[in-house]
Amino acid sequence: MAPPHRQAGRVARFAGPFPPLRGSVALGVVAMAAVAAATRWRLLLVLSAAGLGVTGAPQPPNILLLLMDDMGWGDLGVYGEPSRETPNLDRMAAEGMLFPNFYTANPLCSPSRAALLTGRLPIRSGFYTTNGHARNAYTPQEIVGGIPDSELLLPELLKEAGYTSKIVGKWHLGHRPQFHPLKHGFDEWFGSPNCHFGPYDNKARPNIPVYRDWEMVGRFYEEFPINLKTGEANLTQIYLQEALDFIKRQQAAHRPFFLHWAIDATHAPVYASRPFLGTSQRGRYGDAVREIDDSVGKILHLLRDLSIAENTFVFFTSDNGAALISAPRQGGSNGPFLCGKQTTFEGGMREPAIAWWPGHIPASQVSHQLGSIMDLFTTSLSLAGLEPPRDRAIDGLDLLPTMLQGRLTDRPVFYYRGNTLMAVTRGQYKAHFWTWTNSWEEFRQGVDFCPGQNVSGVTTHSQEEHTKLPLVFHLGRDPGERFPLSIASTEYLDALRQITPVVRQHQEALVPGQPQLNVCNRAVMNWAPPGCEKLGKCLMPPESVPEKCSWPH
Amino acid sequence: MAPPHRQAGRVARFAGPFPPLRGSVALGVVAMAAVAAATRWRLLLVLSAAGLGVTGAPQPPNILLLLMDDMGWGDLGVYGEPSRETPNLDRMAAEGMLFPNFYTANPLCSPSRAALLTGRLPIRSGFYTTNGHARNAYTPQEIVGGIPDSELLLPELLKEAGYTSKIVGKWHLGHRPQFHPLKHGFDEWFGSPNCHFGPYDNKARPNIPVYRDWEMVGRFYEEFPINLKTGEANLTQIYLQEALDFIKRQQAAHRPFFLHWAIDATHAPVYASRPFLGTSQRGRYGDAVREIDDSVGKILHLLRDLSIAENTFVFFTSDNGAALISAPRQGGSNGPFLCGKQTTFEGGMREPAIAWWPGHIPASQVSHQLGSIMDLFTTSLSLAGLEPPRDRAIDGLDLLPTMLQGRLTDRPVFYYRGNTLMAVTRGQYKAHFWTWTNSWEEFRQGVDFCPGQNVSGVTTHSQEEHTKLPLVFHLGRDPGERFPLSIASTEYLDALRQITPVVRQHQEALVPGQPQLNVCNRAVMNWAPPGCEKLGKCLMPPESVPEKCSWPH
Repeated sequence: MAPPHRQAGRVARFAGPFPPLRGSVALGVVAMAAVAAATRWRLLLVLSAAGLGVTGAPQPPNILLLLMDDMGWGDLGVYGEPSRETPNLDRMAAEGMLFPNFYTANPLCSPSRAALLTGRLPIRSGFYTTNGHARNAYTPQEIVGGIPDSELLLPELLKEAGYTSKIVGKWHLGHRPQFHPLKHGFDEWFGSPNCHFGPYDNKARPNIPVYRDWEMVGRFYEEFPINLKTGEANLTQIYLQEALDFIKRQQAAHRPFFLHWAIDATHAPVYASRPFLGTSQRGRYGDAVREIDDSVGKILHLLRDLSIAENTFVFFTSDNGAALISAPRQGGSNGPFLCGKQTTFEGGMREPAIAWWPGHIPASQVSHQLGSIMDLFTTSLSLAGLEPPRDRAIDGLDLLPTMLQGRLTDRPVFYYRGNTLMAVTRGQYKAHFWTWTNSWEEFRQGVDFCPGQNVSGVTTHSQEEHTKLPLVFHLGRDPGERFPLSIASTEYLDALRQITPVVRQHQEALVPGQPQLNVCNRAVMNWAPPGCEKLGKCLMPPESVPEKCSWPH
Repeated sequence: MAPPHRQAGRVARFAGPFPPLRGSVALGVVAMAAVAAATRWRLLLVLSAAGLGVTGAPQPPNILLLLMDDMGWGDLGVYGEPSRETPNLDRMAAEGMLFPNFYTANPLCSPSRAALLTGRLPIRSGFYTTNGHARNAYTPQEIVGGIPDSELLLPELLKEAGYTSKIVGKWHLGHRPQFHPLKHGFDEWFGSPNCHFGPYDNKARPNIPVYRDWEMVGRFYEEFPINLKTGEANLTQIYLQEALDFIKRQQAAHRPFFLHWAIDATHAPVYASRPFLGTSQRGRYGDAVREIDDSVGKILHLLRDLSIAENTFVFFTSDNGAALISAPRQGGSNGPFLCGKQTTFEGGMREPAIAWWPGHIPASQVSHQLGSIMDLFTTSLSLAGLEPPRDRAIDGLDLLPTMLQGRLTDRPVFYYRGNTLMAVTRGQYKAHFWTWTNSWEEFRQGVDFCPGQNVSGVTTHSQEEHTKLPLVFHLGRDPGERFPLSIASTEYLDALRQITPVVRQHQEALVPGQPQLNVCNRAVMNWAPPGCEKLGKCLMPPESVPEKCSWPH
């Protein structure tokens, strides 16, 4: 992290061919030349490639981020899923650019979603806990925290370029009023603040509400049924309709839009609508994937039908690795990678990723760029002709030079649990400073994040400290992290010589945000969300008792 | 297996639109309609699609079978290899048909190669041992046996349709004079009879010879160097040149050809030529894959250059799964599948498979047909307008209806070690009757065929008999064989109800061949291959002492 800049402005609008260089990216590894090229390109984009807005002025491209929930790297045909049931996503890749080395910022949902929308590691935005060592934490109903006002979210920034923004699906950055997505830049919301767990007994725990914009319109398992026995739910169809309607409205209004389609059918309890149930060779999880694939096909088809495909940047990815704890019936595949969601092995952190922008991104490309979910923040700003904020560390890179000119930028990947840096990848080498999946106690109770994938000395159940002698893997030769390099080898020493200064620089410059996921309180649950009174669905909150949240793993 | 037919003729040449149905295919699962359609199609092929031969008569298509050695399902970009270093093979798939469910007939080299060339399970052709229970066996230098004269090999049969046949690379069906490939139908050979293990001390064990046609032209590590330290060897380039030269010669002579390109750079000791060494992100193994990929690109390019692409059927596959025992430096990837070479888990038996025939096989297809290496025998005969032999059981299916019309044919997969039926797949269900990878004794000495992939109760090291209550997996939901179905479930019982009669029928009809891999004798090694005298490379064989071969796993 570079020292904070002194400019007062939060966002510098792009205004000329050679603007001042942007604020820091992680470790300053972006070559100056690449940045200059990118800004020059952005000028061209704004002046020529973009369409014309309602005022006749050049209009930046629409941005459509398709974010899956617990979908794994190995779930798409194009990534080698043997049943090959994702023809639309495979076609999207054939028409665009596939990233085999694309990472989330945390192996759990809330922190990774915060990272996407802020361009920052969760340790910076506060989406972590200090309640225990190396504990993942997320945003259940009891959580008191959420996205701090001081964080600048992508839709907030895109407003300055005239974008209308909508989130469809799961928000997961806090459900108390101050955290509402419409208070953080989105203009519209249809979806839920938390996971669709349940059904709950209303007296102990309310069912999760579904919002339209400011107010709830019902609850899961009530107005929005999910049949746990059959797996039937109509939610993906509803979310699809929300997306199609929004796109049509914005196109009709000639307004650039940002649509964050954050659907959750592949998160347990996994669901699909009736026409898709029983159609997959992969069981219910595959039914959900097939419905999502079909929906993505319909969205891309609409963009073509409306003749805005060439003016709409679409990116498909997932929030974390497949939840192997729910496999095989309700969990997906991480392909050749080790373990899954909850772990900082590749299976927990590497994501499917496809960029699609006909006429701009050349077809059938595979990029070896090491990408991050946080890049979607910076790249989206770049598409809009905006600069990222300069008053804070931003971890996301602008991927446009990669996607449009095939440029590769060296950069590390940081793998965190809570405020603990578990591992770092630099080039082909990954060093684990800490390993554990979960406790022996939990493991013995059947909680297994790496079922059938135990690697002796690697997938440990006590917290193993390797900070002195990290476990190092060569991810090119050994993407499955099964063969640690010998600590006596020259290669091991060379790898550490590359990684150690990266870690030191990162840790010295790091200013952690205020942890948001430490305090829980049953009184803050979704008892009486705005709008409940109109529906007669308000529930009585219990007495307020703030407590330290317990994060077992 | 159907009862043997009484017709005397070994091969019935196709002579009309509705010939008598072919001899048995395994279990008679091919629908009559599909067979009739295939034969009608074959008529069309012979009359129209094929080119004209030197006589002006219709000429059947050339056949080019690219057989890799120990290459795994997960080694190609198109199957999800994360480094994506196989652009030519990926393009081959994009221009042709990819099979995600394609199997070898044995998880070891010799038996699987015998299966390809005979269309029959190794238990029928004799490529197995009875020296121990469920032991894999192959063709090292000491082996006394080899391909029996009674077996009919593909090149022998293709002669009847005027094909000239060449094998480039590893033969591995016996190195004694009576087993020479030119005695079994090939017209040309450049390559070796056994694996390129070594270098050996000449007094105890001769280095493996390299043959051109009838005579040896040198030995590995002598005239054909392989640098074990650097991994440098020029062999793939030599094998490539042999292929290109043969294709050009046959095209110039207007003769249909069968080229069996059985190269071995991905078998340990893994090698690549200097321009490829150090170029892969995957290390030396990846260098070998990159050189192979480049070579396949050059072969396909030549076919296009010579304008014979539309008259040349090309199929790419491998003899068995990646040898994880040599991973990560000298072994490849089996993607999401369990274990590798030597095992009857999916990682040992499922293979990469691409069919390419521009103008005939539609581009960018993925077939869910369950295919087998033995199908290449029957399919090749079909391409040549020939019928498979009727006097014996043939396990290979004709895949032309699949490749040209998208037909799917139900059929089982049998997984053998030696004469022991280890497992059977029917539809999505796989039942293991026996499991073990190797003995505890070997395992404790470091011989691990499933490194980092232990699954409790599945990857066992004692021979576990499950014949009464097989271990059953649903391969669609659980391609990695990590979650056995509960024996108390209805699904388990239903799966067994489907599989049990298939097994019974198979076993009742099975007539095992005379086992070829039981007897070893140091005197039969490659001491003095034909041609050695011209080179002054004859060695003195030791006294003949026939012994029972020892197969530890």
